[in-house]
Formats: sequence, structure tokens, C-alpha cells
Amino acid sequence: MTATTDFPEYTQDARAQAEQELFTLLRIPSVSADPARRADMRRAAEYLQTKLASLGFTARVDDTPGHPVVYAERLQAQGKPTVLIYGHYDVQPEAPLEKWETPPFEPTVRDGRIYARGATDDKGQAYAHVRGAELLLTQGELPVNVKFLLEGEEEVGSPNLEPYIRAHVDELRADTIVISDGSRFAPDVPTVTYGLRGLSYVEVHVTGANRDLHSGSYGGAAPNPINALAQIISSLKDEQGRVTIPGFYDGVDELTPAEREMWAGLPHDDASFAASIGATALPGEAGFSTLERLWARPTLDVNGIWGGYQGEGSKTVIASTAGAKISMRLVPGQDPERITRLIQAYLPTIAPEGAQVVVKDLHGGQPVLIDLDNPYVQAAGRALAAVHGKAPVYTRGGGSIPIVAAFRELLHAPVVLVDFGLNEDAPHSPNESFALSDYHDGVLTSAHLLREISGATS
Amino acid sequence: MTATTDFPEYTQDARAQAEQELFTLLRIPSVSADPARRADMRRAAEYLQTKLASLGFTARVDDTPGHPVVYAERLQAQGKPTVLIYGHYDVQPEAPLEKWETPPFEPTVRDGRIYARGATDDKGQAYAHVRGAELLLTQGELPVNVKFLLEGEEEVGSPNLEPYIRAHVDELRADTIVISDGSRFAPDVPTVTYGLRGLSYVEVHVTGANRDLHSGSYGGAAPNPINALAQIISSLKDEQGRVTIPGFYDGVDELTPAEREMWAGLPHDDASFAASIGATALPGEAGFSTLERLWARPTLDVNGIWGGYQGEGSKTVIASTAGAKISMRLVPGQDPERITRLIQAYLPTIAPEGAQVVVKDLHGGQPVLIDLDNPYVQAAGRALAAVHGKAPVYTRGGGSIPIVAAFRELLHAPVVLVDFGLNEDAPHSPNESFALSDYHDGVLTSAHLLREISGATS
Repeated sequence: MTATTDFPEYTQDARAQAEQELFTLLRIPSVSADPARRADMRRAAEYLQTKLASLGFTARVDDTPGHPVVYAERLQAQGKPTVLIYGHYDVQPEAPLEKWETPPFEPTVRDGRIYARGATDDKGQAYAHVRGAELLLTQGELPVNVKFLLEGEEEVGSPNLEPYIRAHVDELRADTIVISDGSRFAPDVPTVTYGLRGLSYVEVHVTGANRDLHSGSYGGAAPNPINALAQIISSLKDEQGRVTIPGFYDGVDELTPAEREMWAGLPHDDASFAASIGATALPGEAGFSTLERLWARPTLDVNGIWGGYQGEGSKTVIASTAGAKISMRLVPGQDPERITRLIQAYLPTIAPEGAQVVVKDLHGGQPVLIDLDNPYVQAAGRALAAVHGKAPVYTRGGGSIPIVAAFRELLHAPVVLVDFGLNEDAPHSPNESFALSDYHDGVLTSAHLLREISGATS
Repeated sequence: MTATTDFPEYTQDARAQAEQELFTLLRIPSVSADPARRADMRRAAEYLQTKLASLGFTARVDDTPGHPVVYAERLQAQGKPTVLIYGHYDVQPEAPLEKWETPPFEPTVRDGRIYARGATDDKGQAYAHVRGAELLLTQGELPVNVKFLLEGEEEVGSPNLEPYIRAHVDELRADTIVISDGSRFAPDVPTVTYGLRGLSYVEVHVTGANRDLHSGSYGGAAPNPINALAQIISSLKDEQGRVTIPGFYDGVDELTPAEREMWAGLPHDDASFAASIGATALPGEAGFSTLERLWARPTLDVNGIWGGYQGEGSKTVIASTAGAKISMRLVPGQDPERITRLIQAYLPTIAPEGAQVVVKDLHGGQPVLIDLDNPYVQAAGRALAAVHGKAPVYTRGGGSIPIVAAFRELLHAPVVLVDFGLNEDAPHSPNESFALSDYHDGVLTSAHLLREISGATS
């Protein structure tokens, strides 16, 4: 349910307009990983700058060595806190394209959901804050000072954002940083997220012979890099589902009994969770519940693998090379750079004879844990309660927002993670979507949150 | 060195013409695995038919449910043996195209070698027999009755050739069957091959969740089909390099002490063999020499693998599916259909929880062992000695010619395997090639062989 009583200005017309503006943004194929989409990246940035300028923000598009950053500010609330709203306008690659029911960059509404790449991650959630500010402006001046920082490289590890923040520390200074770039716990469960996992992402290349070989003439004597890669990957976890890289678990923060109890009380059951992804089992580290494994335990997954003949029919070849993309989700107590060094050092030591292994660092991100007692997190709780008519739950997220750690380190401000999306939105998958009701609730939550923050500290 | 004394008609002009005719055939991209190349397949078949007809053969192109068969015969040698020459005009896919120094279907001569897909496998070796017959015809009538059977589906497992042979048994009847579709032992070592490995080739599909998932939101609980596939593959061999599929080695013919001794005497050393393929090791089944592992021991290789994100940069996804092509080389005593059933039954039993496994049979071929004492194998030995000025060695081949078993079974005639190529020709690889000298020696060997067979039994 949606409490619009405080914001009668959010009319059906306003909602329709908010939807059309988001659709326009979703039609721009701003895939940061794809060098061919550079111009689209800039178009998306300029679209956001133009919109924010129209709301009376001082807005600009700043170049970086990669994709541009959109920065905007409206600082008219004398003596009130300053809120920095972070989001990203880049999206994941659309592959595999053939699995999309409607084109990824042609937003389509079905059963009350917007289907498009970036609908929930993060264009829809970020734009909800833009419309939230717009909604407040219909009632007069903003109750707090607001800064928007919208980047274009979140899906490739934000390589240029930290330098950008360093170069603009004074300008970006804020009392709190608000981010909506994840999923709340469940459809009817408003959620404040107080932890995120970190990430170490590498690419592995294995080489055998110096050329592809006939598997008949050489099978039985030639090194096979695909078999070798499979052996390496399979040896990275033991039978308990624990990662075998020496030192991997050193320093991992253990869950507190209070957290385990709080999460055990959440409305979750493995059967329906498994059913929601069409899985017949939920394999993982022994000794931890599913939520504990998702939110507070590190893990390792192969995100992609390739080698040899992938075409039609059968080719009797022993490939010269094979490769894989491997990522590890990290938890508080683990340092991404250290973990990346560990796997880079370890893989060559377990390579079968005849296999040459190179491990390339693609990117990493720090895990995050947020103090539940800070006033801004409390304000988020009240904002969600006002919109949903019930108190939110406090959970962690399994994903990573690497830049959150940089915000904390460089801006020394508490981060508030209030997510409008759902896992069922299928971010990063074909047919990514975002419920229209979640989008509009996001707009209202954003408006309530800024108002609550204003009151919280006045 | 090449003994042309018996065939002064094989002049420089004749050689140049023999090369140009082969180049024309090599320019036709007759990739049997590629549905888009159907018309090219027919063009290649018609080119061979036209050539053989011009030599006075009764030649035709016979349709099959797949690609056509070229059949030609010249039966003017009253009371003389009939020789059936088998070859194939289809070639392996050219992928990976970017690794070719010159276009795969634009034959280019460098350092005395013809570079093109199919140069050695099998257009070059098959066409050497066509020119061998032509060479004999310059001296008068052929000394034996000659039949050519040139198929277009060898590289996809000859699915339609056995039915074709059954339908034409009387027409194809012969005293011996000559095949040149492999590699001799070494550049200066004329070789008669008396054994071939069989093949079982399957495609494995592993499914986890019903859609791609965000590795942050689901990593630690969702089944990962790539990790599962790696685990399945790595468990298919033990630390001794032995295949672990239950029953895999049942009935395998052990090597005789005489064979082990004969092969131990061949000019081979592991170091230079490894160097020839740029490998740092020659991993394989413990307890057997490299040649024994290549010729007389079964093995298993992954020929291709795929799953998840293979593009630029990093995508944090847990794929819904992954797949691999797996082939097993078989030896006398192993039945391909039985081995395929074994792996189809075994893989699902070793799948990690949450992984659904389907194993698809792509194709298979029977292993072959030939009696060294039959007069046609002896004739091949004399023909090679005449051309190379030295006695040949007797080896087995690691590859498979599935149809050889069918010939033996349906035509009840001994098969003679006399190979003109070399492993260094890189069949199935980018930059496949065939030495011009090997091509011309092949033409002369073919002519000598037909003459020797005529004498051998007159």
C-alpha cells in the first residue's frame, strides 16, 4: 500500500510523467562494459543533467578517463543537513539477447512491471530520487541540501569514481549518503540494508600446447587446458562448500548471535526461495542458513567459461587455450586486494602439469557494515514506515557497491542503503524488470526520507 | 627423396597441374558441420565427379540424406584385383578464423607447404590418388580395377555412409580398400598404419537455476552450473590419468610385448615431441609410453566448453546453463555405443546437488586393428619403399576413421592405410598445411601401390 496522504501532489498525471521520463532513460543502451556504447553513455548522462537542471539544480556532466559523472546540487536549506544521493546510469550487458521476451532497451509494461535492462539496476531506483526531489519541490524548497552523484561505471567496478571523489572532496561533502541500488527483503517487507559484501573478480587464462591439436593424433599425451581449467576450478571448494584458497577465511567477521536470531525470524523458507529461481537445491557452505550464506559468508562463483569448439556438431580438437571469469564475494574482515593476491598466487600452484596459468585482476570492492544506530538510518526507517504503513526489517545484502567503502573513507559520512527493488526484478538477467508500484513507492520514500532527515537533526 | 624413375611422365608440368587442380578444390569451403555450406559441399562433389569422368571413369554424384557421395569406377583390368579408394572431400570448421595467417579457403604456398583447410585432411591426400590413377593412365590402362568412394560427411561422423554402402554393396565390392586420411610417423619415415582408435563423442548440458542470476544476490546459495560442470569433468580422470567411468576399460586389448618392442625402437623422444607442439609436459595415463598412450590406450578430452559471460570486462552473473563437448578415443576391445551409454549413465550420478545433467550422443566410431600379413598391406610396404628408397615402419594411428570398421564388416575386404600426411600438417587446426613434396610422393605412391597390387596377386 502507498501512503500518498502527505503528498497529494503525486497525482496520476505526475506518476504517468515520472514513468515516461524513466522510459526515455531506459531506451538509451548505456552498457558501460561495451566500448561501442560510448556515445550512448554520454547521452544518458546528459539526459540526467538536463532533467536536474530543469529542477533548479546546478548540474553538470564531468568527464573522467572512462564514462562521465553527472553531478548536481541544490543547496538552499540553510542550517539543514546535506544529503548526497548516489546512483548509476550504466547498466549490465544485455547478453544473452535471445532470452529477452521484449527488447532490453525498449521498456515494456506487462502486469504492472517495467521490463528493460536497467529498470531496477539502477536507472529506476536512481531516477526515483530525482522524482522524489521534484515532488518535494512542488511543496516549496527542499527541506535539506541535496547533491546528486550519478556515475556511469558501477557495472565495471567504478574504476574512475574514487579518483573523482578525491578530486571533489569539498564539493561532495555531506552529512549522509543515500543509495538505492539493491533489493529489499521481500515484496511486502520494507527494508533497510546495513551491510554489503565485497568483491574480488579475476580472469583466468590456461594455455596448453602452442596451437589447437587433433584430439585423435594427440589425445592421451597433449596437455588439455580445458580439462586443466576444470580441475583447477573444482579444487577451489571442498566438500563442505568452503573455499580452499589458503588464508581465504582469515579475519572474517563472524555473525553475532543477535544477527543470526534477527535473520532467523525473517519470513524466509528455502523451498519457496529455491522455487523462485527454479532450482532443485540451494548448495553452499555447510553450517550456515541460506540467508547467512548470502549476506554474511564469503563465496566463490565462476561467472563465465570458454575454450575449444562451441559451434554446431562435433569438432575433434584439443584447444590451445581456455579461460574463465571467477568472482569471490567477500565479507567484513576480508580485503579485496589481499584476496585477489591470494588467488593469483594459488592457482598456478594447483595447475596440472603442462598447463600454464595466468590470473588477471579485473576488479574488486570493499565489504561494508553500517551502524544501525545512526540518525540517518533511523530516518530511513521512519520514511519506509510512512510509505508502507509498517516498520522495516534490517538486513544485509549479498551484492557489492564497491564505492560505498570509498564514500565512508573519503567523505566520513554514514551511508544509508534504502532499496526499492527486489531480487525477482532479475537484475543482471534477461527480462530485468521493476514494478511500477515499487518505482512510485521509491519516489515517495525518497521525499519522505529527505523530510525525515531534515527533522531528525533540526 | 622421390623415385620418379618408374614414372618419367610425372613431369614438372604434370606436378604444376596437379597442384592447381588441388588448389581449386581447396578454395571450396566444404565444411560439412556448417548448414550454411550445403551448396559448397555439392560444388566440391561435382568438381571431383567432373575430374574423374575426364579420366574415363564412370562417375556420378549420389544424394544422401546429408551431403552427397562421389562414386566413380574404371573396371578395365580383366582378371585383376579391384581396389576401392576411399577419401572425403568435407573439411573441419575453420574456427578460430583469427588464428589463420592466410585465409583458410585461399590456398597459399609458403616454404614448400600448401596452407589451407583440408590441405592434408583429406582433400590433398584423396586427390593424390586421383592424380595417381591419372599418372598410370599416361602409361596405358590401369593395372587393376579402380573404384573411388569420396564422401562429404567424414568430419561429422559419416552418418549416411554406412547406409550408402549397404545400399551399394555389390557395386562397391572390392578385394581391398585403400585409405589415405592420416599422418605417417615422421617426415623421413614412410609408414603403414595397421590400427586406429575408435571414438565416442558426446555433448553435456548442465542446468542450475531457471535464469541467469546476480552473483551478489544469489552467490552462496544458488547452484552454479559452470562450477558443477568443472567438478564433473575433473572427476572423470584419477590421479593416474585413468578414466574413472565405471567399466570404461572392460575388454581393452592389451599391447603385445612385440608391439611395445617395435614402437620402443621407433625414432621418438618425448622432449622433441613436446617441443613440436610447444608443450611443457606430456600428461597422460601412468605406466605407458607416449606412443602407447597415443595409439593403443583409450583417453578422454574435453573438446569445447562454454557458459556464462565470455565478453569484455566483468559481469557478476551466475549462469543458468553451461555445456561441454567431450570425446573419448577408444581402442580394440571397446565398443563406442557401449562407452557412450556408460558416460550417459554415469555423469548424472556425479552431478553436484542442484545441477541437472543431460548427455547427448553426437557420434562414435569403431576402433580398428589390421592383419599385417595380408598381401595388400605388403604391397603398400613395397610401394612406399619404391618411392622413399627405404622400408616403411608399421604403426597405429591415434585418430579415428569410423567408416573403416563398416568397410570391413560390409565389404569383407582388408583395409590398407597408407598415409601421406604428417601431424605437423596441423589437421583440424588453424593454418592446416600439406607439404608439396608429400603431395607428389602421394601421387607416386598411389601409382606404385596399384601396380604392386596388380603384381601381388597376378
